[in-house]
Amino acid sequence: MKITILTICPEQFGDFQKTPLIARAVEAGLLDLSVLDIRDYAPGSFRHVDDSPYGGGAGMILRCQPVLDALEAVRTPLSHVAILAPIGKPYVQADAHRLAAMDELVLICGHYEGMDARIYPYADEIISIGDYILTGGELPAMVICDSLMRLVEGSMKKESTMEESFEEGLLEYPQYTRPADYKGQKVPEVLLSGDHEAIRKWRQEEALRITKERRPDLLK
Amino acid sequence: MKITILTICPEQFGDFQKTPLIARAVEAGLLDLSVLDIRDYAPGSFRHVDDSPYGGGAGMILRCQPVLDALEAVRTPLSHVAILAPIGKPYVQADAHRLAAMDELVLICGHYEGMDARIYPYADEIISIGDYILTGGELPAMVICDSLMRLVEGSMKKESTMEESFEEGLLEYPQYTRPADYKGQKVPEVLLSGDHEAIRKWRQEEALRITKERRPDLLK
Repeated sequence: MKITILTICPEQFGDFQKTPLIARAVEAGLLDLSVLDIRDYAPGSFRHVDDSPYGGGAGMILRCQPVLDALEAVRTPLSHVAILAPIGKPYVQADAHRLAAMDELVLICGHYEGMDARIYPYADEIISIGDYILTGGELPAMVICDSLMRLVEGSMKKESTMEESFEEGLLEYPQYTRPADYKGQKVPEVLLSGDHEAIRKWRQEEALRITKERRPDLLK
Repeated sequence: MKITILTICPEQFGDFQKTPLIARAVEAGLLDLSVLDIRDYAPGSFRHVDDSPYGGGAGMILRCQPVLDALEAVRTPLSHVAILAPIGKPYVQADAHRLAAMDELVLICGHYEGMDARIYPYADEIISIGDYILTGGELPAMVICDSLMRLVEGSMKKESTMEESFEEGLLEYPQYTRPADYKGQKVPEVLLSGDHEAIRKWRQEEALRITKERRPDLLK
């Protein structure tokens, strides 16, 4: 899978590219990740990527030209282009599965107070990772890549990704590891029983109970 | 504001601490940010922070002892403690405002396949940044910090944060910058009119229209 990230802050992706999940995927040939600087497509010695908004208001708006020229330079007929911006469709685990199946993904990081609205029609979709405001689309692009690479890597060791939160539309059941008693808090007896069928049933019931209690909206 | 992040991957926060928003806030004395390694609280030469789950299953579970000893070492009577985990309450902009008013915030990054459920009662809240699965709580902790620091910095230049998406329960109206015509796509006339009242009204209507079209759930 090829992922190209267009950003005005490529330096923010250094540590991210070194995380074990991403580095392993690149090394295994599962991921071809490029982080490109939109500024490289802004002409002139000042390389202005933003300008003040028509109609007035605070902040600076990302300009059409550098963003769309950068996009044109990397786009191929196989590219699926997503813009990370707060007006996007909320990203959920089903989207991670959908995008993980793409051959080539281009992620455009919005920034500053916003981007020129005429950029949006050039994308296949606009994605928001949640209903809150961030400085830019850089952290959201990392979130998307992390969620995708877990699935791409996970497909090789299936069991581990299929029992997690949201995969069955439920939150995950509680997990415990040693010791069996931690300062008076005990591990539920059933998990120590060795009765696999009882454990499976308990986990299923707990996942449902916790989802009902914490996120009834997921059950609709 | 003091923010302490407890993680088993402190190296992932290097670039993040250098982002202009965070570096500026630290320099201005608005933010005291520490990133602590949970492994430093795991005894023994192997510093095991995880172990296999009771009852079987894939993956490794973050252990109570190192996480809670790390928490005990940094917690003060002023600390507000949040765990980043997928079973948490979905984070929204109102939470950013709520947390930005805290004196001391401790963020615990969940990791691997999960954390021992007996850790949760030690936190004041559990936060999820969205309904998708990530490798750990590191990117979510950065997302939280970024959203908070925008508000803390923004309070000094108010106008810029109050007109954004979600602040009025609406998505943001479309923004445009030069040129007025980009490859045939034109900036709406009203924005070039200089009529401030008409611009204000147009933006309000557009914010409502876009929210209705893209996120009717926000209007409920």
